[in-house]
Formats: sequence, structure tokens, C-alpha cells
Amino acid sequence: MKKAVCLISGGLDSCVTAHIAKNEGHEVHALSFSYGQRHEKEIECAKTIAHSVNSKKHIIFDLNLDKFGGSSLVNKSQNLEKERSLDEIGKTIPSTYVPARNTVFLSIALAYAETIDADAIFIGATATDYSGYPDCRPKYIKAFQKMANLATKKGVQGKTIEIKAPLLHMSKAEIIKEGIKIGAPLEKTWSCYAGDTKACGKCDSCLLRLKGFKDANIKDPIKYDSLPDWYN
Amino acid sequence: MKKAVCLISGGLDSCVTAHIAKNEGHEVHALSFSYGQRHEKEIECAKTIAHSVNSKKHIIFDLNLDKFGGSSLVNKSQNLEKERSLDEIGKTIPSTYVPARNTVFLSIALAYAETIDADAIFIGATATDYSGYPDCRPKYIKAFQKMANLATKKGVQGKTIEIKAPLLHMSKAEIIKEGIKIGAPLEKTWSCYAGDTKACGKCDSCLLRLKGFKDANIKDPIKYDSLPDWYN
Repeated sequence: MKKAVCLISGGLDSCVTAHIAKNEGHEVHALSFSYGQRHEKEIECAKTIAHSVNSKKHIIFDLNLDKFGGSSLVNKSQNLEKERSLDEIGKTIPSTYVPARNTVFLSIALAYAETIDADAIFIGATATDYSGYPDCRPKYIKAFQKMANLATKKGVQGKTIEIKAPLLHMSKAEIIKEGIKIGAPLEKTWSCYAGDTKACGKCDSCLLRLKGFKDANIKDPIKYDSLPDWYN
Repeated sequence: MKKAVCLISGGLDSCVTAHIAKNEGHEVHALSFSYGQRHEKEIECAKTIAHSVNSKKHIIFDLNLDKFGGSSLVNKSQNLEKERSLDEIGKTIPSTYVPARNTVFLSIALAYAETIDADAIFIGATATDYSGYPDCRPKYIKAFQKMANLATKKGVQGKTIEIKAPLLHMSKAEIIKEGIKIGAPLEKTWSCYAGDTKACGKCDSCLLRLKGFKDANIKDPIKYDSLPDWYN
């Protein structure tokens, strides 16, 4: 059975991605990062998602990115930015940007993949709704693949650890529809930057998620503190 | 003053590299990794070296690469491989190979560099004595640079965080001579995979180091448990 390392954040995108990996016949080895998130909710969701794809193993990797500071997602002393409208999202790089995050995550996934002799790494990066993050662009993923081929023992032997980002060119609505089609438990996912028991319904991540459900004409199964006017 | 993140392992190569960074006029921000080494000796040497280049800050980053296993350098239950002769070193990938190590280190350095707005990352990689590690080859460093340019906010703004590997094409003897020329404290460095108070004089790393000093016609200032016949 082909092995794949799946990056699972607890969010909607990585949930659908992990189910795609499973459906393609991979034995899933789940990898999540604990990196100074504001809450542990994401990790709990990641565990549920890893379980839902029968992960052979689920490694929660501690990463003290808050040692460097720099992002309101990792640095607890920095406030989350002001609410933005849907129009503003994707036009600038938000303060929730974690420097080189996908590079760090993919690199550690690469170390894991090489150790267990996996054929692929699955990441839920999406360029369509990329919200201004440079490391979600297709050309970035391509460059990482090229570097990875040169970085590893497997590469020297002429084999490849394939970086798979199956959602790269999908809109949030398409991801939601795909997730429902393949039975991904979207009700167990968590996207909010700010919330705790309920999602806030106001941060970039909530707005993009809600917009996706609206466009897909499907009701988001999770609970929100408040909903934008346009959602209902 | 230009800022540079310098990867400092405690070994000879990273010591000389950090001194090159300083001599080029950089304010050094030192970064070392604690990743399941067999001993903490390396970290102590890294601190001394960081101090010798007047580092503005020295971050010791915990990285539990032993969660994955896979290398005798990180996995304490796996024995170090049998001693090899100088002829054998560099022809195959040794068991001390840590999967994707430089990729993980450079990625985290990239996150640090972007956070503090540094212009460069210095790494002591060397291709000449690369001892069989794929991620010490010039084409690997080049591919990492290309990926890094696409990964970062700085890259989007058309600026570059330069990956500098000034030793890349130097032999160990040349590195030693350069280090002495610029006043790098080689007597404070540690290269041995196995030793504790004294270096073993038998592992790949000791042999390459001793060969370098012999070729440079300079006496290695550190103490060894035993020395190979050809050294004296």
C-alpha cells in the first residue's frame, strides 16, 4: 500500500485533502503542528480528522514558531487584525501570515516522508482563495517539489516524494462539494482564527468558509457566534 | 547594518561561516537546533561560537526530529554505524544522514529571517567533503533559493533573502586555513558524532576534520581519544 504523509490542520481544506489521499488508496500518516495557536481546538479537530481517514499514525509536532514572533496567529501578544470585508481579503498579505509557514511544514513533512519511505505528501493549499499568502501559489509548490527532489536520499536514487496539493486550483465552494461527495466530515472541521466553542463568523477564515458554503448552496454544519448579513 | 541569520551547529564549518558573515558586516542572529543529539556538547559549543561573533540574539530551537526516527544521529536506539575508512566516506549516504535535515533547518531559518527582516541566511554546507549528504550539493542550495524567493512576503515584494553557503566549494583544509586567517575560534568547535569530553577520532566527522588539519598542515587544537595512524 502506498504511504502518504498528510498535513492536517483541523481545517476544512486539509480535511478534504486527507480524504482525497485516502480515496486514492494511500495509507495515511497524519502530521499536525502545534505552533503557538491561540487555542488547542484545531489540534482536537485534527485528531478527529486523522481518525476519520484511518491514519496509521498521527504525529503532533511541536514547533515554537512564536520564538520568532511576527504573526498574530502565532504571537499571542499581537492582536488579530481588524475585521476585513470579503473584497479586501486576498488583495494584501494579512497579519495572520506566518513567515515561511508552508515551507516549514512541508520540510518537516519531507523529513517524515523520507523516514517512513512515503511516496507523497498531501497539503491542502489552495491558490484560489489564497488570502494573500505567497506560499499557496502553484509556482511555489512547483519550486518546493524541485528542491525536495534534490534534498533527499530518495531523490538521489531517482525516485520522488510527490508534493500533492489536490485543492490548488479549486474554489472554496468546489472544495466543499468535493468534500461532501467523498464523505469528508466537514462538521468536524475548524477554520476560525479567533473563536473558541463557536466560530466567530468575522475573521478572514470564517468569511472565506461561509462564502464557500453560500456559493456551494450548502449550509455550513458548524456553529457561529454571528453571521454576516450576506450569508442568509 | 545588514542582518543575517547564521545556522550554528557547534562544528568547525558553521563556526568559520559565522565569522565570514560577521566579517562581511552582518549583524548576526544565531540559530541552533536541539534535535535529539546524542549529547548537549554541540549546543554548548554553538553558544560559545555565537558569542564570538557578537550575535545580537541566539535562538536554540527545539526540534523533535527523533519523533520520526530514521537516523543514528537523532535516534538514540539506533547504533552509530561501524567505523569507515576515509576512502569509504563520501561514496555512500551514511546512517548518520538525517532525512531532509538542511531543508528543515533552512526553512526555519527562513521563517526567522523573514520575521526579523534579514537579508541573508548563512549555512556552513560544504559539497567537497559532503560525506554523501544530498542536501549539501550546490544544485540543492540553488533550488532552495528559488523556492525561498517564492515562499516569502519579501519575495513577493521583489526582494531576496539570500541563502549564503560560503564554504560550498572549499575543502576542509581550505576552511581551516580561512578560519584561522579570520580569527574563528576553531579550538571551541566540536565535530564528533560519538564523543563526550574528548572527540573519538574514529567517526566520519572526526576523520574528515583530522584529514583537513593534516592537509592544511596545522595541528587540530581539540583533544581526541585516539588518532588514526596517518594523522601524525
